[in-house]
Amino acid sequence: MRVAVVGATGAVGREMTRTLEQRAFPVDEFVPLASSRSAGARVRFRDDEVTVREASVDALRGCDLALLSAGATVSRAICRDAAAAGLVCVDNSSAWRMAPDVPLVVPEVNAHALAGHHGIVANPNCTAITALMAVGPLHRKFGLTGLVLSSYQSVSGSGMKGIRELAEQVGKLGADVESLMSPDHDALPAGDVYGKTVAFNVLALQGGMDEEDWTGEERKLLNEARKILDLPDLEVQATVVRVPVVTGHSVSIYATFGRSVTPEEARGLLGRSPGVRLVDDPHHGEYPTPLDAAGIDDVLVGRVRRAAGRDDGLLLFACGDNLRKGAALNAVQIAEALFTGN
Amino acid sequence: MRVAVVGATGAVGREMTRTLEQRAFPVDEFVPLASSRSAGARVRFRDDEVTVREASVDALRGCDLALLSAGATVSRAICRDAAAAGLVCVDNSSAWRMAPDVPLVVPEVNAHALAGHHGIVANPNCTAITALMAVGPLHRKFGLTGLVLSSYQSVSGSGMKGIRELAEQVGKLGADVESLMSPDHDALPAGDVYGKTVAFNVLALQGGMDEEDWTGEERKLLNEARKILDLPDLEVQATVVRVPVVTGHSVSIYATFGRSVTPEEARGLLGRSPGVRLVDDPHHGEYPTPLDAAGIDDVLVGRVRRAAGRDDGLLLFACGDNLRKGAALNAVQIAEALFTGN
Repeated sequence: MRVAVVGATGAVGREMTRTLEQRAFPVDEFVPLASSRSAGARVRFRDDEVTVREASVDALRGCDLALLSAGATVSRAICRDAAAAGLVCVDNSSAWRMAPDVPLVVPEVNAHALAGHHGIVANPNCTAITALMAVGPLHRKFGLTGLVLSSYQSVSGSGMKGIRELAEQVGKLGADVESLMSPDHDALPAGDVYGKTVAFNVLALQGGMDEEDWTGEERKLLNEARKILDLPDLEVQATVVRVPVVTGHSVSIYATFGRSVTPEEARGLLGRSPGVRLVDDPHHGEYPTPLDAAGIDDVLVGRVRRAAGRDDGLLLFACGDNLRKGAALNAVQIAEALFTGN
Repeated sequence: MRVAVVGATGAVGREMTRTLEQRAFPVDEFVPLASSRSAGARVRFRDDEVTVREASVDALRGCDLALLSAGATVSRAICRDAAAAGLVCVDNSSAWRMAPDVPLVVPEVNAHALAGHHGIVANPNCTAITALMAVGPLHRKFGLTGLVLSSYQSVSGSGMKGIRELAEQVGKLGADVESLMSPDHDALPAGDVYGKTVAFNVLALQGGMDEEDWTGEERKLLNEARKILDLPDLEVQATVVRVPVVTGHSVSIYATFGRSVTPEEARGLLGRSPGVRLVDDPHHGEYPTPLDAAGIDDVLVGRVRRAAGRDDGLLLFACGDNLRKGAALNAVQIAEALFTGN
């Protein structure tokens, strides 16, 4: 198979390349593409160094599969024509997620939606994936009726530039107690990516907003949860917050169901769910953190508790590697489901 | 007036002392007390250096007012006897908050509860104060029916030792992009205060747990919201998370009400509420952050949005300085209400 990675020099594209290698995806020819700015760079695939070319429909000609993570503008420009030319595009941008003829898939949750795709399959938002890996198995058994989500998203969700901005600011602010306790508010570092200081801070406004002051990221959680779970009227409340974590998105989840559910039942179910690692022994200090989730495939789920005063509600906390399961791994899993039957 | 600060060398005690000075509380004699470990230290009050003595009921004799922030054990040992001897104890620990004869007060929200106190008044949990400063004014007008809270709490909530642990870990992990991207998971710094690495991480388990796996901090949000708002059956769901922020607790709030409410009405009300600063111009990048809340008295409230699909629910984000309004300032305000009529 000829497999292209579009956005090959970005944080997710690099992870897609590594994931194809690690999972021994049957790649006969590897085609790294990126924006014109990165064309000419060289990336490693297995034992070869391959030159990155500029992404275009032409550059994809002859490929069987493209994994795209180069932003919605590139995906909008490329995917329809590439699909018409016979490629399968697994797209990590938000460009096609809500298109009615494009499946939006977390393989462990709704692989069935892949049937009858038209050449484009969308990879969901990274926090949506993390939340749904925890909630999906519970929904199947107990019937989800509502979700309240508050996220704790890492800077690598903004790509390499997010990581660089955090590192730069931490360097500037220093790590001694006195300077941390009394920062000079008139000289706080504010970068291009986040506008405000992200180091030693939390930023509860990420991206543009709609007419109801929901951000795009928040609206994605609502729309994508509804589409993936096939619950068009599901109540979803969402607040998206950036935190000074490098890799690993976390989400605080309050879920309500159509029937009663105990934490024991939920833990039993989650403990048997593929792709989920139950980390829930709080009395021995075991619970999910983004640092523990970074670099692994499984989504960590824990702090499973009964909601106060009701037997049809649960509180949970989930952490996933936003570059792996939140992006690259999920995309490669979709490709595996389509091409290798794994 | 003779005024004691118990726990005078701690992060909150230091802030209580500064707040008494800054607000010109009528202190004729300042009596700093602390654990035996800190006895003998010297602290500054106005132009004097005063020697810290060991805290005890005896050491408080002759005082009119004690502001306590030395932990629940000290408060349990001291407050009843001190109150019987005629002192008023304003206690920042959790020792007395749920005692039926002890008012639990955020002056802007329920100053009326001070009437008929028996010598002890409890200062609420820092995150509860932050959340209730935002929700209290809305409740008065629209009738609160439910709260879902997820917190983003700073390390100074654990006192000076929390700040030191974060600073130490940031120093160890470094601030260059490559080391941040590939931390050595076998050598992550884990300190005494948080158990796990708090730098570049979020920790969704803070403190001991009850039989339902709710932490004490989470249960406080539920119990204290119910007591302060005098809504014994209020539905409150809470998840408490520590984040690598030095000062300033944040809370993501989903609030439902007994009648419909628009974001415009809520903003109007919050904009007129004493102690609240509405920071809510998201289209111009204005929203609350803990760094902006640190060092000021007001609680910042913003991201006021209509909950998806319902006209009786709001989403909000609030940030407060956990050492000031979340602790020292609120305690001094209680003392002012009792002694100076402010």
